[in-house]
Amino acid sequence: LELGQEDPIREVVAELHTADLADLIEQLKSKHRTLLFEVAGDLIDPEVFSEIDESIRDDLVEDMDPTEIAAVVTELELDDAVHVLEDLEEEDQQDVLRELPAEDRLVIEQSLSYDEDSAGRLMQRDTIAVPEYWNIGQTIDYLRDTQDLPNEFYEIFVVDPRHHPVGTIPLDRAMRSQRTVNVRDIMNREQKLIPVDMDQEEVAYLFQQYRLASAAVVNESGALIGMITVDDIVDVINEEAEEDILRLGGVSEDDLFGSIMGTTRTRFTWLLVNLLTAVLASIAIGFFDATMEKIIALAVLMPIVASMGGNAGTQTLTVAVRALATRELTSNNMFRILGKEAIVAFLNGTAFAILIGLVAWIWFGDLSIGWVIAVAMVVNMLVAGVAGMAIPIALDHYKIDPAVASSVFVTTITDIIGFVAFLGIATLVLL
Amino acid sequence: LELGQEDPIREVVAELHTADLADLIEQLKSKHRTLLFEVAGDLIDPEVFSEIDESIRDDLVEDMDPTEIAAVVTELELDDAVHVLEDLEEEDQQDVLRELPAEDRLVIEQSLSYDEDSAGRLMQRDTIAVPEYWNIGQTIDYLRDTQDLPNEFYEIFVVDPRHHPVGTIPLDRAMRSQRTVNVRDIMNREQKLIPVDMDQEEVAYLFQQYRLASAAVVNESGALIGMITVDDIVDVINEEAEEDILRLGGVSEDDLFGSIMGTTRTRFTWLLVNLLTAVLASIAIGFFDATMEKIIALAVLMPIVASMGGNAGTQTLTVAVRALATRELTSNNMFRILGKEAIVAFLNGTAFAILIGLVAWIWFGDLSIGWVIAVAMVVNMLVAGVAGMAIPIALDHYKIDPAVASSVFVTTITDIIGFVAFLGIATLVLL
Repeated sequence: LELGQEDPIREVVAELHTADLADLIEQLKSKHRTLLFEVAGDLIDPEVFSEIDESIRDDLVEDMDPTEIAAVVTELELDDAVHVLEDLEEEDQQDVLRELPAEDRLVIEQSLSYDEDSAGRLMQRDTIAVPEYWNIGQTIDYLRDTQDLPNEFYEIFVVDPRHHPVGTIPLDRAMRSQRTVNVRDIMNREQKLIPVDMDQEEVAYLFQQYRLASAAVVNESGALIGMITVDDIVDVINEEAEEDILRLGGVSEDDLFGSIMGTTRTRFTWLLVNLLTAVLASIAIGFFDATMEKIIALAVLMPIVASMGGNAGTQTLTVAVRALATRELTSNNMFRILGKEAIVAFLNGTAFAILIGLVAWIWFGDLSIGWVIAVAMVVNMLVAGVAGMAIPIALDHYKIDPAVASSVFVTTITDIIGFVAFLGIATLVLL
Repeated sequence: LELGQEDPIREVVAELHTADLADLIEQLKSKHRTLLFEVAGDLIDPEVFSEIDESIRDDLVEDMDPTEIAAVVTELELDDAVHVLEDLEEEDQQDVLRELPAEDRLVIEQSLSYDEDSAGRLMQRDTIAVPEYWNIGQTIDYLRDTQDLPNEFYEIFVVDPRHHPVGTIPLDRAMRSQRTVNVRDIMNREQKLIPVDMDQEEVAYLFQQYRLASAAVVNESGALIGMITVDDIVDVINEEAEEDILRLGGVSEDDLFGSIMGTTRTRFTWLLVNLLTAVLASIAIGFFDATMEKIIALAVLMPIVASMGGNAGTQTLTVAVRALATRELTSNNMFRILGKEAIVAFLNGTAFAILIGLVAWIWFGDLSIGWVIAVAMVVNMLVAGVAGMAIPIALDHYKIDPAVASSVFVTTITDIIGFVAFLGIATLVLL
């Protein structure tokens, strides 16, 4: 497809929805990507740039000169434009900004001045704001006469003379009302205002909790300066969920389209931490080398207790991390739930103790080995259940992201307790 | 708070937003919940029932008689009502349905007839549909005159005489247009139609991909029968992400508020699978008991190689599972990405081989043990990288959810390869 005719390619590009085109570009090899831009660059909607995966966008943007990037950026909505620019290096960013019309530049610079992942970065600056003494007729005429309106909006914000939001009117309600009705009389007075420096995770929480379609963003003095719409929140929710999934898996960022060296580096850190904990576990095992030399069956069975503890701990910590993220697990119910987890861990621990005790007894024809592994299993599963719940709660309390750090703590504990309990009890009982 | 005065409690309940009240109820102990309903049940908005966690809602609903449930259900929007009813047992469901007004019953029964997790369950039946020969003035008058309209809507659907959707008009565009403008002239002709039996995951994908605010749902013959709005999709996205997170952690459902026995049972299955794989790994170790008896250092170091492989495999499979869910990983780029993962695994494998080789050499003062563990490390990390990417892809190909099954396959492989490579090479080289 990519290697000959230009016309069919241009046709495909022209017909595709921007989101699909972005996906297509992601799927291509990098040399084919360059080719595509050469052949059909003029047909590619700038919006494609805001839909494309970050690491691929960076590659593409690197090949472009500031004027080209500036041309793309001016076509985008503010939040998307900022998204493209924020990943550039300081110097390149300045070069691009210099190429922008003064008006756009000012707005984008202001947006970039807000923290990454804050409401300020998410918001659009264009909003519909009307004074409360207007009626619906005036509002509709204003909408019809004004050209410079946001592309999409679901609510009209009502503001006082200081431009502070005092209420909102959903568009459907405005449309259903007669022209003579006063804005003041049909507006919702309860509304959630988003401070411009609120973290995007918090913003997403508000949107979900109160099922908002859009919300007003206000500055420190409470004046309306922008709005956030639910379609931007869908992206945030995805990002935050993705972050949790990846962190629980020991990956710091989505590196699917990352370079080989970049990916190797991001994975390395986590593996290094794991190496240290594995060596720690080995040191613990080392204390019992004399015991193992005498009864080699212990060395054979040893990984089972640790592995079961690790898995039980991971189950519990996954539930805990998720419940902390959705705010279902709080200081009110944490002791109740910790107690429940301990009982669940004890019940499953007992069940698996019986199972593995029987297996070990039959396998090595030694009842006492069966007893040792059974007791170690109950101990380690109980520890796993309690640690799997308590550690994420503790990390969260000290403002450390439980998704990042919980699993290393929990599995280190279950590994070490698993080995030490099994080999330690064996040393006491069997020797 | 809960144990004496009724008035302050009633005040709090009356003031809280339904979503916050639902959260509050989730936090209470079950006897306090019952008390709250006795004291302030009349103040509790039925909508609270649609916001509350499933397992708690089931508890609450069990204590209510069908007439009470029916009273709640009639107050809810269709999709929420179905949500409350779908978890009831067949018999109870029938009892409640019998108590409903005939009109509501019919609509809810039809909704329940669609598959769980299908578009039919998500949709609202009320839509705004206008013929294409109307103008904006007629549309606005229709909106003003009709009472039975959806609570919230963002788009007006334009239909042909057979009630098939032919276009949409975003509300903001309708409001900005003059009354004389024809619907036909300003409608978007491109729209995404959702078949009523489409899976909710697919629906969520369409909403994200094309940034939809709402979409028309059509039946088999293509006629408009309802609509889905983005606020319902926010819930679906959360659910699907939660499902992936929990499944990767070895938990089949969110059991935070589940009963002790229920939680024990859901965790048991996964742990049983893990026990089998752990025993398998032990059997593999068992083949080398003679080797370990001679060189006990091998037993001490043995878990390190397996553990590093397990972690490297988990990293890769997490990225793979996520990329499959977001459709970034496809049959087009899978070989390229598999190749990249293999190289990344080899690079990190080599780095950690050198590290652990040196550690083992110094620890046991035996260079050959260092060599053995280093070679085993490279082998196992390479296997981990390739298996971590290939297994999710293969499972996905055979329509098995990679989030559920990948990690058991990958860690079984990395455990067994880890132990066999290390002990096997040691047997060949050191004995």
